[in-house]
Amino acid sequence: MDRRSFLKTSALGGTAAAATTLAAPAYAQGNRTLTMVTSVPDGFAVFDDAAVNFIDRVNAMADGAITIEKKAAGQLVGAFEVFDAVSSGQADMYHSADYYFGGQHPGYYFMTAVPFGATGGEMSSWYYHGGGSQLHDELGGIFGLKSFLAGNTGHQPGGWFNKEINSAADLQGLKFRMPGLGGLALGRTGASVQNVPGGEIYQALASGAIDGAEWIGPFADERLGFQEVCEFYYTGGMHEPGSALVASMNRDVWNEMTPAIQEIISTAAAATHQWSLSQSNYNNGAALERLKSQGVKVLEFPDDVWDAFGTAAAGALDEFMDDELFARIRESQEAAVRSTYAWTSISDDVYTAQRARVMG
Amino acid sequence: MDRRSFLKTSALGGTAAAATTLAAPAYAQGNRTLTMVTSVPDGFAVFDDAAVNFIDRVNAMADGAITIEKKAAGQLVGAFEVFDAVSSGQADMYHSADYYFGGQHPGYYFMTAVPFGATGGEMSSWYYHGGGSQLHDELGGIFGLKSFLAGNTGHQPGGWFNKEINSAADLQGLKFRMPGLGGLALGRTGASVQNVPGGEIYQALASGAIDGAEWIGPFADERLGFQEVCEFYYTGGMHEPGSALVASMNRDVWNEMTPAIQEIISTAAAATHQWSLSQSNYNNGAALERLKSQGVKVLEFPDDVWDAFGTAAAGALDEFMDDELFARIRESQEAAVRSTYAWTSISDDVYTAQRARVMG
Repeated sequence: MDRRSFLKTSALGGTAAAATTLAAPAYAQGNRTLTMVTSVPDGFAVFDDAAVNFIDRVNAMADGAITIEKKAAGQLVGAFEVFDAVSSGQADMYHSADYYFGGQHPGYYFMTAVPFGATGGEMSSWYYHGGGSQLHDELGGIFGLKSFLAGNTGHQPGGWFNKEINSAADLQGLKFRMPGLGGLALGRTGASVQNVPGGEIYQALASGAIDGAEWIGPFADERLGFQEVCEFYYTGGMHEPGSALVASMNRDVWNEMTPAIQEIISTAAAATHQWSLSQSNYNNGAALERLKSQGVKVLEFPDDVWDAFGTAAAGALDEFMDDELFARIRESQEAAVRSTYAWTSISDDVYTAQRARVMG
Repeated sequence: MDRRSFLKTSALGGTAAAATTLAAPAYAQGNRTLTMVTSVPDGFAVFDDAAVNFIDRVNAMADGAITIEKKAAGQLVGAFEVFDAVSSGQADMYHSADYYFGGQHPGYYFMTAVPFGATGGEMSSWYYHGGGSQLHDELGGIFGLKSFLAGNTGHQPGGWFNKEINSAADLQGLKFRMPGLGGLALGRTGASVQNVPGGEIYQALASGAIDGAEWIGPFADERLGFQEVCEFYYTGGMHEPGSALVASMNRDVWNEMTPAIQEIISTAAAATHQWSLSQSNYNNGAALERLKSQGVKVLEFPDDVWDAFGTAAAGALDEFMDDELFARIRESQEAAVRSTYAWTSISDDVYTAQRARVMG
């Protein structure tokens, strides 16, 4: 898949959104309802949990001054149409994963995850202290959006496979579901990358239409029942090392908010980022044990597969380096990751390894 | 140092706080000022930064309904008197590290850090999803407090030494500054544990009154100038693997707040926990490079020192197991750490190791 065809296919609904601005009462009159569109069905583990956590915080703090009302994927606009709907003013806000909008601008890949990029903790480091938030703002300026991280799935596993992957050669021709820049990278290893919406993955695996898929992680994946149709689960993965979710508001609507409501939205989003990341980290271990007890074999990719991933990821990222803002965002995130890992690798990692060795 | 003498010496100011309840206007009338006492001077890196971040968020969101006013250590009460001042109603809130109040109840050690306990990320996992917040609430019920994590230093290094530590024998008689349960553990290895306030550590090291000290981490430590008086810095440490800071409110004052203000305080504290943890993780690596360029030698403890730490830590924790609530908190935190690490060790850790190997 080359860049041009990807840009074309990923700009879903790019022209569908009508430029209807809501005739809402001015904020000063209070009790304004804001419509938030999302990219998943109501109740989807992890993804929708984060949207609900964010909305509940904002609505409780705003005390009626604003009330966010959620419209799940398909209720007002389609899953991948939320970006254009909010950019145009058809809806006030969205909650989604910004890498779905890499077709609008490839810089958005970094606001969710890129292959061999930031873990969940490194994402916080970059976003709140290394310039990530300001770069998100710069991207938003292009599209009339004001955006905040508001959720994080943590490390996403390599995924579900119907056979063992013993070398990079086993990836050749493999029909595998993977979105985002990770999918572009996987395509460069010889795999046949498929676009399958979350709600259709189970059936695609069961029917043999695809050979494998990644979704979120054990806690979310088990609810979709992949353990019934796939035997092998690779826990380490290169494609989404800490996928952020995003709450994004139409910038005209944002500018109508008081400074107090703006701080409520910003602080709620930050609290939800942490809540969501720790939700997955807390629950994935136990979920994985349940999957194992149902016969799932948990494996790790061999080094030569990781080597192939590395070459493919660098190639996929390099495709976009003619875009000045993409290049600047990449440089900024990579610098923050290097700096953070330089510390955590000699502090947390030394500590947890010794704790495991000494305390068992 | 046995438990009884520790309890006695750590209950600093336990009787100093007068039971003066503030005659504040009822919240419904608005514009109520809340006094927050802290345990460090204004401007202290990491520690005071978190207090300021929390206060700024609350004040901006509350929009005048409440305004938190900070009183640094010594302005209203002493650094370690803040717990009793807020419990008695002399002040409305404190921002501090709850392990200073292990003398009031040893369960408070877990609300900052215990040796071989939770990293910063594991602390989030336990506190927001594994019952930690509810146990903090149960402790607060005893003392009339409503408490929230509101800051985290991340991993605290083993610390500064005036000689290399090549075996556990080198700890014998070493005069070392370390507070909390980590200090109780270190005392069991044969070291002579010293209580030295943060502002006096530099002088104690320079004069040779102590042989070494731990404070927070490279970013905070360099501002205190320890690199001028100590040559050796051990980055991995057992004593504070992810020290949380806490915002705590008098429970009567809390009950006078509206649900909206209560949510503002709770959400601000959570956002500050993440902001603060990522502040240290972002800045420590670069700070460590600066320390190295000034001649500091960065080292790791050998395995037999870690083994001695392990035995000492288990012994220090076991001392308090006759307290039912302590035992319940310990069991809860240890279960959350095990469950979280079972996942992160096969996801994040596998990933970051492969990233380092493949991408350099």
